[in-house]
Amino acid sequence: MNFNYPNGKRYIPEKKETIKLKKEKKWSYSNRGMTLEEDINITNEYYLEQNIAAIHKKPTPLQIVQVDYPKRSAAVIKEAYFKQASTTDYNGVYKGKYIDFEAKETQNPTSFPLKNFHDHQIKHMETILKQDGICFVLLRFSLTEEIFLLEAQHLLTFWKRMEDGGRKSITKDEIEHFGHLIPLGYQPRIDYIKKIDYLYRLS
Amino acid sequence: MNFNYPNGKRYIPEKKETIKLKKEKKWSYSNRGMTLEEDINITNEYYLEQNIAAIHKKPTPLQIVQVDYPKRSAAVIKEAYFKQASTTDYNGVYKGKYIDFEAKETQNPTSFPLKNFHDHQIKHMETILKQDGICFVLLRFSLTEEIFLLEAQHLLTFWKRMEDGGRKSITKDEIEHFGHLIPLGYQPRIDYIKKIDYLYRLS
Repeated sequence: MNFNYPNGKRYIPEKKETIKLKKEKKWSYSNRGMTLEEDINITNEYYLEQNIAAIHKKPTPLQIVQVDYPKRSAAVIKEAYFKQASTTDYNGVYKGKYIDFEAKETQNPTSFPLKNFHDHQIKHMETILKQDGICFVLLRFSLTEEIFLLEAQHLLTFWKRMEDGGRKSITKDEIEHFGHLIPLGYQPRIDYIKKIDYLYRLS
Repeated sequence: MNFNYPNGKRYIPEKKETIKLKKEKKWSYSNRGMTLEEDINITNEYYLEQNIAAIHKKPTPLQIVQVDYPKRSAAVIKEAYFKQASTTDYNGVYKGKYIDFEAKETQNPTSFPLKNFHDHQIKHMETILKQDGICFVLLRFSLTEEIFLLEAQHLLTFWKRMEDGGRKSITKDEIEHFGHLIPLGYQPRIDYIKKIDYLYRLS
Protein backbone atom coordinates (compact mmCIF):
# COMPACT_ATOMS: atom_id res chain seq x y z
CA MET A 1 0.00 0.00 0.00
CA ASN A 2 1.27 3.49 -0.89
CA PHE A 3 0.41 6.41 1.38
CA ASN A 4 1.92 9.73 2.28
CA TYR A 5 3.05 11.24 5.59
CA PRO A 6 1.02 14.28 6.81
CA ASN A 7 3.84 16.50 5.47
CA GLY A 8 3.18 15.09 2.00
CA LYS A 9 6.37 13.08 1.91
CA ARG A 10 5.75 9.62 0.60
CA TYR A 11 6.06 6.81 3.10
CA ILE A 12 8.61 4.23 2.12
CA PRO A 13 8.61 1.05 4.20
CA GLU A 14 11.91 0.28 5.88
CA LYS A 15 12.34 -3.00 4.09
CA LYS A 16 12.35 -1.28 0.72
CA GLU A 17 15.01 1.14 1.88
CA THR A 18 17.23 -1.74 2.83
CA ILE A 19 16.74 -3.27 -0.58
CA LYS A 20 17.45 0.04 -2.25
CA LEU A 21 20.61 0.50 -0.22
CA LYS A 22 21.78 -2.92 -1.20
CA LYS A 23 21.12 -2.12 -4.82
CA GLU A 24 23.20 1.02 -4.62
CA LYS A 25 25.98 -0.79 -2.87
CA LYS A 26 26.08 -3.72 -5.18
CA TRP A 27 28.80 -2.39 -7.42
CA SER A 28 31.31 -2.60 -4.61
CA TYR A 29 31.73 -6.22 -5.76
CA SER A 30 31.72 -7.54 -2.22
CA ASN A 31 28.84 -9.68 -1.02
CA ARG A 32 26.71 -8.69 -3.95
CA GLY A 33 24.75 -11.88 -3.60
CA MET A 34 24.70 -12.20 -7.39
CA THR A 35 25.41 -15.60 -8.80
CA LEU A 36 27.81 -16.16 -11.65
CA GLU A 37 24.84 -17.25 -13.76
CA GLU A 38 22.97 -14.00 -13.12
CA ASP A 39 26.04 -11.95 -14.02
CA ILE A 40 26.48 -13.89 -17.25
CA ASN A 41 22.80 -13.60 -18.19
CA ILE A 42 22.91 -9.84 -17.68
CA THR A 43 26.12 -9.66 -19.71
CA ASN A 44 24.47 -11.63 -22.54
CA GLU A 45 21.41 -9.36 -22.46
CA TYR A 46 23.75 -6.38 -22.82
CA TYR A 47 25.55 -8.02 -25.77
CA LEU A 48 22.18 -8.72 -27.39
CA GLU A 49 20.79 -5.20 -26.91
CA GLN A 50 23.99 -3.62 -28.21
CA ASN A 51 24.19 -5.98 -31.21
CA ILE A 52 27.57 -7.19 -29.98
CA ALA A 53 26.78 -10.90 -29.87
CA ALA A 54 23.80 -13.27 -29.61
CA ILE A 55 24.54 -15.76 -26.85
CA HIS A 56 21.89 -17.57 -24.79
CA LYS A 57 21.73 -19.93 -21.86
CA LYS A 58 20.14 -23.20 -22.86
CA PRO A 59 17.06 -24.24 -20.88
CA THR A 60 17.56 -26.92 -18.22
CA PRO A 61 16.84 -30.30 -19.80
CA LEU A 62 13.94 -32.11 -18.11
CA GLN A 63 12.40 -35.53 -18.48
CA ILE A 64 8.66 -34.92 -18.57
CA VAL A 65 6.62 -37.86 -17.22
CA GLN A 66 3.09 -36.53 -16.69
CA VAL A 67 1.21 -33.58 -18.16
CA ASP A 68 -2.33 -32.52 -17.30
CA TYR A 69 -4.48 -30.60 -19.74
CA PRO A 70 -7.12 -28.79 -17.69
CA LYS A 71 -10.02 -27.40 -19.69
CA ARG A 72 -9.57 -23.80 -20.80
CA SER A 73 -6.14 -23.43 -19.23
CA ALA A 74 -2.52 -24.08 -20.03
CA ALA A 75 -1.03 -27.57 -19.83
CA VAL A 76 0.44 -28.32 -16.39
CA ILE A 77 3.45 -30.57 -16.00
CA LYS A 78 2.74 -32.67 -12.89
CA GLU A 79 5.80 -34.91 -12.87
CA ALA A 80 9.22 -34.26 -14.36
CA TYR A 81 12.87 -34.87 -13.47
CA PHE A 82 16.10 -33.00 -14.05
CA LYS A 83 18.29 -34.60 -16.70
CA GLN A 84 22.05 -34.27 -17.03
CA ALA A 85 22.90 -31.89 -19.86
CA SER A 86 24.78 -33.39 -22.78
CA THR A 87 26.24 -30.05 -23.79
CA THR A 88 27.50 -26.90 -22.13
CA ASP A 89 25.09 -24.25 -20.83
CA TYR A 90 25.78 -21.30 -23.11
CA ASN A 91 26.15 -20.94 -26.85
CA GLY A 92 25.63 -18.49 -29.64
CA VAL A 93 27.23 -16.41 -32.34
CA TYR A 94 29.77 -13.62 -32.46
CA LYS A 95 30.91 -12.23 -35.83
CA GLY A 96 29.77 -15.41 -37.56
CA LYS A 97 31.79 -17.62 -35.20
CA TYR A 98 30.25 -20.26 -33.01
CA ILE A 99 30.77 -19.52 -29.30
CA ASP A 100 30.27 -22.20 -26.64
CA PHE A 101 31.01 -22.15 -22.93
CA GLU A 102 30.28 -23.40 -19.47
CA ALA A 103 30.51 -21.40 -16.22
CA LYS A 104 31.43 -22.81 -12.82
CA GLU A 105 32.43 -21.48 -9.44
CA THR A 106 34.31 -22.82 -6.45
CA GLN A 107 34.71 -21.90 -2.79
CA ASN A 108 38.19 -23.41 -2.87
CA PRO A 109 40.76 -20.59 -2.68
CA THR A 110 43.75 -22.42 -4.18
CA SER A 111 42.47 -24.78 -6.87
CA PHE A 112 39.50 -25.54 -9.11
CA PRO A 113 38.10 -29.08 -8.66
CA LEU A 114 37.49 -30.88 -11.97
CA LYS A 115 34.43 -32.62 -10.52
CA ASN A 116 32.58 -29.43 -11.51
CA PHE A 117 32.53 -30.83 -15.04
CA HIS A 118 31.15 -34.14 -16.23
CA ASP A 119 32.17 -36.53 -18.99
CA HIS A 120 29.43 -35.47 -21.43
CA GLN A 121 30.47 -31.85 -21.24
CA ILE A 122 34.13 -32.66 -21.80
CA LYS A 123 33.23 -34.79 -24.81
CA HIS A 124 31.04 -31.97 -26.14
CA MET A 125 33.94 -29.50 -25.81
CA GLU A 126 36.20 -31.84 -27.79
CA THR A 127 33.58 -31.99 -30.55
CA ILE A 128 33.26 -28.21 -30.67
CA LEU A 129 37.02 -27.78 -30.99
CA LYS A 130 37.10 -30.35 -33.84
CA GLN A 131 34.49 -28.19 -35.61
CA ASP A 132 36.68 -25.08 -35.09
CA GLY A 133 34.19 -23.59 -32.69
CA ILE A 134 35.36 -21.22 -29.96
CA CYS A 135 34.98 -23.07 -26.67
CA PHE A 136 35.98 -22.10 -23.15
CA VAL A 137 35.00 -22.13 -19.48
CA LEU A 138 34.46 -19.23 -17.12
CA LEU A 139 35.87 -20.18 -13.71
CA ARG A 140 34.98 -18.11 -10.68
CA PHE A 141 36.79 -18.20 -7.36
CA SER A 142 33.97 -17.10 -5.05
CA LEU A 143 36.16 -16.01 -2.12
CA THR A 144 38.26 -13.60 -4.14
CA GLU A 145 35.53 -12.91 -6.76
CA GLU A 146 38.01 -13.52 -9.56
CA ILE A 147 36.73 -14.82 -12.89
CA PHE A 148 39.05 -16.48 -15.39
CA LEU A 149 38.42 -17.46 -18.98
CA LEU A 150 40.18 -20.75 -19.69
CA GLU A 151 40.10 -22.06 -23.25
CA ALA A 152 38.71 -25.57 -23.61
CA GLN A 153 41.97 -26.95 -25.03
CA HIS A 154 43.67 -26.21 -21.67
CA LEU A 155 40.79 -27.65 -19.65
CA LEU A 156 41.03 -30.83 -21.76
CA THR A 157 44.75 -31.10 -20.97
CA PHE A 158 44.07 -30.89 -17.22
CA TRP A 159 41.19 -33.35 -17.58
CA LYS A 160 43.56 -35.80 -19.33
CA ARG A 161 46.12 -35.35 -16.55
CA MET A 162 43.41 -36.43 -14.09
CA GLU A 163 42.42 -39.42 -16.23
CA ASP A 164 46.10 -40.43 -16.34
CA GLY A 165 46.11 -40.57 -12.54
CA GLY A 166 47.16 -36.99 -11.86
CA ARG A 167 45.53 -34.39 -9.62
CA LYS A 168 41.75 -33.96 -9.64
CA SER A 169 41.88 -30.18 -9.87
CA ILE A 170 43.58 -27.29 -11.63
CA THR A 171 45.75 -25.21 -9.33
CA LYS A 172 45.07 -21.51 -9.19
CA ASP A 173 48.63 -20.90 -10.38
CA GLU A 174 47.90 -22.93 -13.49
CA ILE A 175 44.68 -21.03 -14.12
CA GLU A 176 46.51 -17.72 -13.71
CA HIS A 177 49.13 -18.93 -16.18
CA PHE A 178 46.92 -20.50 -18.89
CA GLY A 179 43.73 -18.53 -18.30
CA HIS A 180 42.78 -14.89 -18.59
CA LEU A 181 41.45 -12.80 -15.73
CA ILE A 182 38.26 -10.93 -16.62
CA PRO A 183 37.88 -7.82 -14.47
CA LEU A 184 34.30 -7.28 -13.27
CA GLY A 185 32.71 -4.26 -14.89
CA TYR A 186 29.52 -2.31 -14.79
CA GLN A 187 28.39 -2.79 -18.40
CA PRO A 188 29.02 -5.46 -19.47
CA ARG A 189 29.66 -7.14 -16.14
CA ILE A 190 31.81 -10.01 -17.38
CA ASP A 191 33.22 -8.89 -20.70
CA TYR A 192 34.31 -12.27 -22.00
CA ILE A 193 33.76 -11.23 -25.64
CA LYS A 194 36.57 -8.70 -25.30
CA LYS A 195 38.94 -11.54 -24.38
CA ILE A 196 37.65 -13.65 -27.26
CA ASP A 197 38.27 -10.75 -29.61
CA TYR A 198 41.82 -10.51 -28.39
CA LEU A 199 42.52 -14.26 -28.32
CA TYR A 200 41.08 -14.98 -31.77
CA ARG A 201 41.96 -11.65 -33.40
CA LEU A 202 38.35 -11.01 -34.36
CA SER A 203 38.27 -7.20 -34.18
CA MET B 1 4.92 -59.57 -17.36
CA ASN B 2 7.32 -61.98 -19.10
CA PHE B 3 6.44 -65.68 -19.20
CA ASN B 4 7.16 -68.64 -21.45
CA TYR B 5 4.90 -71.02 -23.37
CA PRO B 6 4.95 -74.68 -22.15
CA ASN B 7 7.33 -75.48 -25.05
CA GLY B 8 9.82 -73.05 -23.58
CA LYS B 9 9.34 -70.43 -26.28
CA ARG B 10 9.03 -66.99 -24.86
CA TYR B 11 5.64 -65.31 -25.12
CA ILE B 12 5.69 -62.10 -27.08
CA PRO B 13 2.53 -60.05 -26.91
CA GLU B 14 0.94 -59.30 -30.27
CA LYS B 15 1.29 -55.57 -29.86
CA LYS B 16 5.07 -55.81 -29.91
CA GLU B 17 5.01 -57.70 -33.23
CA THR B 18 2.97 -54.96 -34.78
CA ILE B 19 5.47 -52.37 -33.61
CA LYS B 20 8.35 -54.42 -35.03
CA LEU B 21 6.66 -54.69 -38.40
CA LYS B 22 6.17 -50.97 -38.55
CA LYS B 23 9.86 -50.45 -37.80
CA GLU B 24 10.94 -52.66 -40.68
CA LYS B 25 8.65 -50.88 -43.09
CA LYS B 26 9.68 -47.38 -42.13
CA TRP B 27 12.19 -46.80 -44.95
CA SER B 28 9.51 -46.77 -47.60
CA TYR B 29 9.10 -43.04 -46.74
CA SER B 30 5.35 -43.32 -46.97
CA ASN B 31 3.34 -43.20 -43.80
CA ARG B 32 6.50 -43.74 -41.81
CA GLY B 33 4.93 -42.10 -38.83
CA MET B 34 8.19 -40.29 -38.17
CA THR B 35 7.95 -36.66 -37.24
CA LEU B 36 10.13 -33.99 -38.76
CA GLU B 37 11.72 -33.52 -35.34
CA GLU B 38 12.69 -37.18 -35.10
CA ASP B 39 14.21 -37.13 -38.58
CA ILE B 40 16.23 -34.02 -37.73
CA ASN B 41 17.41 -35.47 -34.42
CA ILE B 42 18.60 -38.64 -36.14
CA THR B 43 20.32 -36.53 -38.81
CA ASN B 44 22.08 -34.49 -36.12
CA GLU B 45 23.20 -37.67 -34.33
CA TYR B 46 24.67 -38.88 -37.59
CA TYR B 47 26.50 -35.57 -38.12
CA LEU B 48 27.84 -35.78 -34.58
CA GLU B 49 29.04 -39.40 -34.85
CA GLN B 50 30.71 -38.74 -38.21
CA ASN B 51 32.34 -35.52 -36.99
CA ILE B 52 30.51 -33.59 -39.70
CA ALA B 53 28.84 -31.01 -37.47
CA ALA B 54 27.76 -30.53 -33.85
CA ILE B 55 24.15 -29.37 -33.86
CA HIS B 56 21.68 -29.94 -31.02
CA LYS B 57 18.03 -29.34 -30.33
CA LYS B 58 17.57 -27.01 -27.38
CA PRO B 59 15.56 -28.36 -24.45
CA THR B 60 11.97 -27.11 -24.20
CA PRO B 61 11.94 -24.09 -21.89
CA LEU B 62 9.80 -24.62 -18.80
CA GLN B 63 8.72 -22.42 -15.94
CA ILE B 64 9.28 -24.52 -12.83
CA VAL B 65 6.91 -23.65 -9.97
CA GLN B 66 7.21 -26.46 -7.44
CA VAL B 67 9.94 -29.01 -6.78
CA ASP B 68 9.84 -31.78 -4.18
CA TYR B 69 13.01 -33.23 -2.70
CA PRO B 70 12.10 -36.67 -1.39
CA LYS B 71 14.69 -38.23 0.94
CA ARG B 72 17.26 -40.42 -0.80
CA SER B 73 15.80 -39.88 -4.27
CA ALA B 74 16.00 -37.43 -7.13
CA ALA B 75 14.21 -34.09 -7.04
CA VAL B 76 10.70 -34.28 -8.55
CA ILE B 77 9.19 -31.34 -10.36
CA LYS B 78 5.52 -31.27 -9.29
CA GLU B 79 4.35 -28.16 -11.11
CA ALA B 80 5.75 -26.57 -14.24
CA TYR B 81 4.47 -24.85 -17.37
CA PHE B 82 5.63 -24.66 -20.96
CA LYS B 83 7.19 -21.34 -21.88
CA GLN B 84 7.42 -19.80 -25.31
CA ALA B 85 10.96 -20.14 -26.65
CA SER B 86 12.80 -16.89 -27.30
CA THR B 87 15.07 -18.50 -29.86
CA THR B 88 14.88 -21.17 -32.55
CA ASP B 89 15.01 -24.87 -31.66
CA TYR B 90 18.30 -25.96 -33.21
CA ASN B 91 21.78 -24.51 -33.15
CA GLY B 92 25.39 -25.56 -33.30
CA VAL B 93 28.63 -25.39 -35.22
CA TYR B 94 29.80 -26.47 -38.66
CA LYS B 95 33.35 -25.67 -39.78
CA GLY B 96 33.61 -22.91 -37.20
CA LYS B 97 30.40 -21.26 -38.43
CA TYR B 98 27.38 -20.71 -36.26
CA ILE B 99 24.32 -22.62 -37.55
CA ASP B 100 20.80 -21.82 -36.36
CA PHE B 101 17.45 -23.08 -37.57
CA GLU B 102 13.82 -23.85 -36.89
CA ALA B 103 11.79 -26.71 -38.36
CA LYS B 104 8.05 -26.61 -39.09
CA GLU B 105 5.54 -28.65 -41.02
CA THR B 106 2.17 -28.01 -42.57
CA GLN B 107 -0.74 -30.10 -43.82
CA ASN B 108 -1.52 -27.36 -46.32
CA PRO B 109 -0.60 -28.56 -49.84
CA THR B 110 -0.22 -25.17 -51.55
CA SER B 111 1.22 -22.72 -49.04
CA PHE B 112 3.08 -22.48 -45.75
CA PRO B 113 1.20 -20.45 -43.08
CA LEU B 114 3.41 -17.90 -41.32
CA LYS B 115 1.54 -18.43 -38.03
CA ASN B 116 3.94 -21.37 -37.57
CA PHE B 117 6.49 -18.79 -36.44
CA HIS B 118 6.20 -16.26 -33.67
CA ASP B 119 7.59 -12.76 -33.18
CA HIS B 120 10.38 -13.79 -30.82
CA GLN B 121 11.75 -16.29 -33.28
CA ILE B 122 11.67 -13.81 -36.16
CA LYS B 123 13.49 -11.27 -34.01
CA HIS B 124 16.03 -13.90 -33.04
CA MET B 125 16.66 -14.73 -36.72
CA GLU B 126 17.28 -11.06 -37.50
CA THR B 127 19.84 -10.93 -34.69
CA ILE B 128 21.61 -14.05 -35.97
CA LEU B 129 21.88 -12.61 -39.48
CA LYS B 130 23.29 -9.36 -38.07
CA GLN B 131 25.98 -11.46 -36.38
CA ASP B 132 26.75 -13.20 -39.70
CA GLY B 133 25.39 -16.50 -38.44
CA ILE B 134 23.91 -19.01 -40.86
CA CYS B 135 20.17 -19.07 -40.22
CA PHE B 136 17.37 -20.88 -42.02
CA VAL B 137 14.13 -22.82 -41.64
CA LEU B 138 13.31 -26.35 -42.69
CA LEU B 139 9.75 -26.40 -44.05
CA ARG B 140 7.99 -29.70 -44.55
CA PHE B 141 4.86 -30.25 -46.60
CA SER B 142 3.45 -33.30 -44.83
CA LEU B 143 1.16 -34.46 -47.65
CA THR B 144 3.89 -34.63 -50.26
CA GLU B 145 6.72 -35.29 -47.74
CA GLU B 146 8.80 -32.54 -49.31
CA ILE B 147 11.30 -30.66 -47.17
CA PHE B 148 12.68 -27.28 -48.21
CA LEU B 149 15.52 -25.27 -46.74
CA LEU B 150 14.62 -21.59 -46.84
CA GLU B 151 17.24 -19.08 -45.73
CA ALA B 152 16.12 -16.72 -42.97
CA GLN B 153 16.60 -13.62 -45.14
CA HIS B 154 13.79 -14.87 -47.42
CA LEU B 155 11.52 -15.81 -44.53
CA LEU B 156 12.03 -12.31 -43.13
CA THR B 157 10.96 -10.79 -46.47
CA PHE B 158 7.73 -12.82 -46.46
CA TRP B 159 7.15 -11.94 -42.81
CA LYS B 160 7.51 -8.26 -43.67
CA ARG B 161 5.05 -8.66 -46.54
CA MET B 162 2.53 -9.99 -44.01
CA GLU B 163 3.21 -7.13 -41.58
CA ASP B 164 2.65 -4.69 -44.44
CA GLY B 165 -0.80 -6.16 -44.95
CA GLY B 166 0.08 -8.88 -47.47
CA ARG B 167 -0.70 -12.60 -47.40
CA LYS B 168 -0.26 -14.56 -44.18
CA SER B 169 1.58 -17.42 -45.85
CA ILE B 170 4.33 -18.25 -48.33
CA THR B 171 3.03 -19.92 -51.46
CA LYS B 172 4.57 -23.24 -52.41
CA ASP B 173 5.71 -21.69 -55.68
CA GLU B 174 7.65 -19.08 -53.76
CA ILE B 175 9.22 -21.73 -51.56
CA GLU B 176 10.21 -23.74 -54.64
CA HIS B 177 11.74 -20.62 -56.13
CA PHE B 178 13.60 -19.19 -53.12
CA GLY B 179 14.13 -22.40 -51.14
CA HIS B 180 16.05 -25.59 -51.77
CA LEU B 181 14.46 -29.04 -51.84
CA ILE B 182 16.26 -31.54 -49.63
CA PRO B 183 15.70 -35.10 -50.86
CA LEU B 184 15.06 -37.57 -48.04
CA GLY B 185 17.92 -40.02 -47.63
CA TYR B 186 18.87 -43.00 -45.55
CA GLN B 187 21.98 -41.59 -43.85
CA PRO B 188 21.74 -38.75 -43.19
CA ARG B 189 17.98 -38.49 -43.54
CA ILE B 190 17.72 -34.74 -44.11
CA ASP B 191 21.12 -33.66 -45.37
CA TYR B 192 20.74 -29.94 -44.77
CA ILE B 193 24.47 -29.49 -44.19
CA LYS B 194 25.13 -30.43 -47.82
CA LYS B 195 22.91 -27.51 -48.90
CA ILE B 196 24.66 -25.19 -46.46
CA ASP B 197 28.00 -26.27 -47.87
CA TYR B 198 26.79 -25.40 -51.35
CA LEU B 199 25.06 -22.14 -50.43
CA TYR B 200 27.92 -20.75 -48.32
CA ARG B 201 30.80 -22.34 -50.27
CA LEU B 202 32.14 -24.03 -47.15
CA SER B 203 33.68 -27.18 -48.66
